[in-house]
Amino acid sequence: MKWARVEQAGQVHFGQVRGARILLGDGDPIVGQWTAGVEVDLASVKLLVPVWPRTFYAAGFNYADHVIEQARIAGTKPNIPEKPDIGYRANNALIASGEAIVKPTDAGELFQYEGELVAVIGRTARHVSEAEALAYVFGYTIGNDVSERTWQNSDRTLWRAKNTDTFSPMGPWIETDVDLAALTTTVRLNGRQVISFKTNNMLFGVARYISAMSRYLTLYPGDVIWMGAEGDAENMVPGDVCEVEISGIGTLSNPVVAEG
Amino acid sequence: MKWARVEQAGQVHFGQVRGARILLGDGDPIVGQWTAGVEVDLASVKLLVPVWPRTFYAAGFNYADHVIEQARIAGTKPNIPEKPDIGYRANNALIASGEAIVKPTDAGELFQYEGELVAVIGRTARHVSEAEALAYVFGYTIGNDVSERTWQNSDRTLWRAKNTDTFSPMGPWIETDVDLAALTTTVRLNGRQVISFKTNNMLFGVARYISAMSRYLTLYPGDVIWMGAEGDAENMVPGDVCEVEISGIGTLSNPVVAEG
Repeated sequence: MKWARVEQAGQVHFGQVRGARILLGDGDPIVGQWTAGVEVDLASVKLLVPVWPRTFYAAGFNYADHVIEQARIAGTKPNIPEKPDIGYRANNALIASGEAIVKPTDAGELFQYEGELVAVIGRTARHVSEAEALAYVFGYTIGNDVSERTWQNSDRTLWRAKNTDTFSPMGPWIETDVDLAALTTTVRLNGRQVISFKTNNMLFGVARYISAMSRYLTLYPGDVIWMGAEGDAENMVPGDVCEVEISGIGTLSNPVVAEG
Repeated sequence: MKWARVEQAGQVHFGQVRGARILLGDGDPIVGQWTAGVEVDLASVKLLVPVWPRTFYAAGFNYADHVIEQARIAGTKPNIPEKPDIGYRANNALIASGEAIVKPTDAGELFQYEGELVAVIGRTARHVSEAEALAYVFGYTIGNDVSERTWQNSDRTLWRAKNTDTFSPMGPWIETDVDLAALTTTVRLNGRQVISFKTNNMLFGVARYISAMSRYLTLYPGDVIWMGAEGDAENMVPGDVCEVEISGIGTLSNPVVAEG
């Protein structure tokens, strides 16, 4: 089932996406409290960020080719992570599918997409084994971890490189019925495929991350874990449209504009 | 004025602290929507984390002596930051004054406090100059950035070292009337003073951070910025009580317990 968070007539609703229609309702399905209302055309509502996370986790380096490529850009030796050390992103940077990624005036040429699977937590998780971890996931959505590589290498933290306003497109909705092993992530720039990879070909998978994290911290319903991106990336320039598709989930699409 | 967030009879309220009493009310004073209700004894209510941040920012290395001390522990050369690169912490780790800091069973000996000033944002801030930045602050509270130094040096991120559940005591309340230049931070372990320093003796002050951050990102009412800690620290062990006092604001006090 596909759960979208949308705005209609000034009100925010979660709704079930059914092809070109959406069944709107009241309450939050992530915590199991939702009642159905009216069905309307999907095109008649505005998609919002599908969940506002309490904490926004990001796996960072989680695919081997990506680690190697980023080391090449930084002029350092590739350092493949040996354990799942989670990182963080900031809510201010979240935008919905369809909203514009704004390239700051002083951002450099290496302004790039990263197409990522996002796990949305559905149940409070603490001390969860790897075998039971996926039962704590409500569903999956898609993220684009927009990155300015010069800042990524020059700043002490990733605050500008990955957390500038609009740098975290997430959506279009949350899919609850997902076979992780079957997923393919495809990124397109202006309709042209720039990378395609097996989504689950991660150094550490969703279950491994949830289990490791929950040893030390409590995961709450609505928390999101961005699972990292594969390979290298091309540069985005204002005027481009970047799409991240994950088979069976949907397509996250965002135009790129210059800071006004 | 001191604003506390408290629980009374199962309800959450913001209230104005008046000596040993508190004037409870409804609504959120941080966004300017609060109406007064009844006054009760402060001792009759439970203090909560004074604000639940949308984004939890932390300045990390922001005092010269602390940078030098942490480099000594890590066996590296001190690297004094040359610009205010903000970092992040996670909401899961927040606890109120009076709640217990839980030391995990596998945490090492270097389990330490960091007493910090916390700025609470009161108005949406974007492209704010250093001269006008402090007008965007609602008030100030106190944080204890509990840190496991072995993890801080071994992990790729600070997720375990500084974001394990209970590692972010914050409170006891927010003080709106603060003269930054006059503040002194004092940390006590079991009543014994272990460090005392001029709070505002930072590498980059509150106004500088807000101005720099707001060039790239939007700060929202309720966001918090932890401003970093000075000097070295002693180890905490279960049974200890750690207090962080900032003159004119109050005292954040938390017992340390072993993981059960």
